[in-house]
Amino acid sequence: MPQLMNDPAFRAYSIACSILVLKMFAVALMTAATRSRVKQFLNPEDAKVLGGADVTQVHRNDLENILPFFTIGLIFVLTGVSGFAAQVYFYTFTGARIAHTVTYIARLQPWRTIAFVLGQLCTIGMLVQILIAAL
Amino acid sequence: MPQLMNDPAFRAYSIACSILVLKMFAVALMTAATRSRVKQFLNPEDAKVLGGADVTQVHRNDLENILPFFTIGLIFVLTGVSGFAAQVYFYTFTGARIAHTVTYIARLQPWRTIAFVLGQLCTIGMLVQILIAAL
Amino acid sequence: MPQLMNDPAFRAYSIACSILVLKMFAVALMTAATRSRVKQFLNPEDAKVLGGADVTQVHRNDLENILPFFTIGLIFVLTGVSGFAAQVYFYTFTGARIAHTVTYIARLQPWRTIAFVLGQLCTIGMLVQILIAAL
Repeated sequence: MPQLMNDPAFRAYSIACSILVLKMFAVALMTAATRSRVKQFLNPEDAKVLGGADVTQVHRNDLENILPFFTIGLIFVLTGVSGFAAQVYFYTFTGARIAHTVTYIARLQPWRTIAFVLGQLCTIGMLVQILIAAL
Repeated sequence: MPQLMNDPAFRAYSIACSILVLKMFAVALMTAATRSRVKQFLNPEDAKVLGGADVTQVHRNDLENILPFFTIGLIFVLTGVSGFAAQVYFYTFTGARIAHTVTYIARLQPWRTIAFVLGQLCTIGMLVQILIAAL
Repeated sequence: MPQLMNDPAFRAYSIACSILVLKMFAVALMTAATRSRVKQFLNPEDAKVLGGADVTQVHRNDLENILPFFTIGLIFVLTGVSGFAAQVYFYTFTGARIAHTVTYIARLQPWRTIAFVLGQLCTIGMLVQILIAAL
């Protein structure tokens, strides 16, 4: 199905997913580095004091939010949305998740919560449009 | 590809995925609420006594089971199944996962295990049909 | 869309995803068996001594690596790659992840790290090709 790449909505989806997977891998690398720095066999309380817990939390938050986006974003593309709507949703979500990671690590509140909510709103917005198209 | 929404199998997939993502977000919200209630810095044993562990467990169980369903369900649709087969599988799975969450929180055994196994059987049933079609 | 199953790239994707989900379910079963063996209410340190932690770690590593593969692999197929390229990537990734699980449980270093890196390289290779096609 080479013609899908001619669809600007699918192209935006491909780019957003690629960037998000790279971001997740970067966080995984940082998690691994942090774990070996604070030693794998420390108990959770010590690891938290030494800064290990934050990166692990970012990583889990990523799994919970980015992985559902992959599915909802693809269904959104396949409902036949305009390239513009797809680009707005996908790049806002991607930016929000990068901002979430940065603000989590830098402990910048309330920006972390704002980035989290913005990402959730993107997913929920697409989800509502999917339900309207499907029902 | 607007024509995909004319496929009742894809429509059922879209609806099931949307409901399941909403369910996962609801559990995530409950997890966050529980965490802030029992305080984030309690050790796991205290959190368990205070009821925090259950919601976290539901959430992880969701990630492990619902996320693979998203992929297997989509491949199942794309193998060209009938709308009826898709609806039976997708809505049974969706119902089973909602029942799993409710019975987990309400601690209703053996119903929780039954709901879990029913969801797994849906995924495995689709998976077997995919392998038959692909091999 | 029954014609997708005529695409050897999509067929390889379907087979790889099915095998990987079966592998993840097998690890989940082992995790559950280990948990009930070492008792669910042991603290993490005891569980680790008794061998429980390893299987849980495999499982999380699976979620972090196999689930992004599902999305990247599908986009890769939909960019219109050759069946040969898809088969090389998908079956190498599948073999690497099975090897990762086996070497994790059998504690065979450095093979576990080699299997992990091989899997990551597959995903990153596809991701680069996707970005080249999309940009």
